[in-house]
Amino acid sequence: MTVQLHSLSELNEFLHSRAYSSFTILTDSNTHEHCLGDLLASCEAFKDAEVIEVEPGESSKDVEIASGIWSVLLENGTDRHACLINLGGGMVTDLGGFVATTFKRGIAFIHIPTSLLGMVDAAIGGKTGINLDSHKNQVGTFAPPHAVVTCAEWLQTLPDRELRSGYAEMLKHGLVADPAHFNELANLTSLHIEELAPSIRRSAELKMQVVEQDFREAGLRQILNFGHTAGHALEALMAQNGTPILHGEAVAQGLRCALQLSVSELGLDQGVADTASAALQRFVPLPTGRMTPATAELLWPFMLTDKKNREGQVRFVLLEALGKPQMDQPVDFTTFAQAWQSIVD
Amino acid sequence: MTVQLHSLSELNEFLHSRAYSSFTILTDSNTHEHCLGDLLASCEAFKDAEVIEVEPGESSKDVEIASGIWSVLLENGTDRHACLINLGGGMVTDLGGFVATTFKRGIAFIHIPTSLLGMVDAAIGGKTGINLDSHKNQVGTFAPPHAVVTCAEWLQTLPDRELRSGYAEMLKHGLVADPAHFNELANLTSLHIEELAPSIRRSAELKMQVVEQDFREAGLRQILNFGHTAGHALEALMAQNGTPILHGEAVAQGLRCALQLSVSELGLDQGVADTASAALQRFVPLPTGRMTPATAELLWPFMLTDKKNREGQVRFVLLEALGKPQMDQPVDFTTFAQAWQSIVD
Repeated sequence: MTVQLHSLSELNEFLHSRAYSSFTILTDSNTHEHCLGDLLASCEAFKDAEVIEVEPGESSKDVEIASGIWSVLLENGTDRHACLINLGGGMVTDLGGFVATTFKRGIAFIHIPTSLLGMVDAAIGGKTGINLDSHKNQVGTFAPPHAVVTCAEWLQTLPDRELRSGYAEMLKHGLVADPAHFNELANLTSLHIEELAPSIRRSAELKMQVVEQDFREAGLRQILNFGHTAGHALEALMAQNGTPILHGEAVAQGLRCALQLSVSELGLDQGVADTASAALQRFVPLPTGRMTPATAELLWPFMLTDKKNREGQVRFVLLEALGKPQMDQPVDFTTFAQAWQSIVD
Repeated sequence: MTVQLHSLSELNEFLHSRAYSSFTILTDSNTHEHCLGDLLASCEAFKDAEVIEVEPGESSKDVEIASGIWSVLLENGTDRHACLINLGGGMVTDLGGFVATTFKRGIAFIHIPTSLLGMVDAAIGGKTGINLDSHKNQVGTFAPPHAVVTCAEWLQTLPDRELRSGYAEMLKHGLVADPAHFNELANLTSLHIEELAPSIRRSAELKMQVVEQDFREAGLRQILNFGHTAGHALEALMAQNGTPILHGEAVAQGLRCALQLSVSELGLDQGVADTASAALQRFVPLPTGRMTPATAELLWPFMLTDKKNREGQVRFVLLEALGKPQMDQPVDFTTFAQAWQSIVD
């Protein structure tokens, strides 16, 4: 359903095969600086494209920002045969996907992720979303982009911290779906782009394979939520406290918590949990004390709005073994609090 | 895809066969007064339902109102297995459908239209939408309700003006898809509910048949837009001027304009156009002089944002004969202005 492209010249060919009526490029100021010039120089099709720039950061995944973009599209006379090009990290692709799938009841969109997290995760799978009252992705749609374009060379310009954030999601793909991929990633000696690059395509493929089996997350796709129940809550709480952390940093801690729960609730081998947790601590560290204010009590209300919940019960994805996830596992507050305590201490 | 139900007891049976986790009822203050009591008394399943009430009228089809409803659903702990019940006219079903299809990336929804327009048109076919900067339905989704429930007895409480408004859409269904239905409606002696009622189910069926062949309006479904190119523009302009008219009243004038264009552009028989136009003037009249401020020059900018447009050209659906629509007909300003002038004079 979504075409995977691996360079701007492949994108050029793809665009020649389609009859979009116009292009609008959505980007943020960081990506504008580093990648937009490359894109415009490489793709003749974009010579008349309108460019809409939003502020970088999670706070742009907001209904007022979405509404502002709809209005600009309307003012520009954008019709329903147009295509929105989302050039940026997960924020831009989530926001742009939501705007595109709802403008005139849905126009085409193409994702060009510029972050590692985007390339291996956020841009793949057709989930779009904005946040609501500090709660992540509470509003959105399922709709596949026409294409996703990966330009790994852009990762050279990324700060290390952004590479770390993508690493957490890649490790997750290994944990839930591919022990070999997990071992490869856990054994890296550093996160230099040269070391990581060979694993990017595999990680993206793993995600695509899961998504294609369950596009609307009626079942299997939920395994990709491993680590995200507490991870999303941590990300939202830290943002609300005015001390935001990156999505992947929050997921790294969420994964550590879910691994601990997998040991206590489903008998996951402690050695697997320790290996994964150590890799996350090594490659996606948070400064000492940074997590202290995020107590289990403060996280729980956020977890109660998790989309996987049913009948008011918080449900985790947990692992019974490496590559063997179990969905829909109810976890009560006390059990969660114990696991959380063990990773914060 | 959508189950058609014809009474509250059929709704009761349907709900027993499903496992929704909770219900929220969206309504407006008019419907709250006339229909909500009936509904709650008839459906045990709704005894713990939350009720969200919005102001009646087109101005509630707004992104801020939608955002407020998302927030209430979030605060109430609504999960993705919940069902939103949209009880009201086209405004409530359009707005509620949009909110439901985007909350947590889509929860179930059931439409219970309380207006004639809702029963024969707005609630059928899975189009949802809100307005943007006075432009109709510029933001929305395609998503089928799980069920549509028609309770014709509620039409007794409707003001005559609301019946007229529904009549225009019914006549349109006859014009584009069923000459017998058209003749039946054109030959009514009054719009008393007893005279209209037998035609309601047929009109709803006609719409459903077209929609099922082309859910996402890639082609055929556009015929249902007959009369809506100028009709939507008129509705938006009158609202912007602070002198709003009903959707069906605007569509009636839009139909008259499209009929005139059909004669001049596609050779539609003048007699058919005259019969239809006379029925619309008789059953959906506007006070003399009411249309005078709506000049072709003021309408045109609204028409330039019509979703059927392509490459900046305004495209009409026109008729070459009764029951034989042609889509995608480019019409320039001068041609439109002549047709418009002929119906306003």
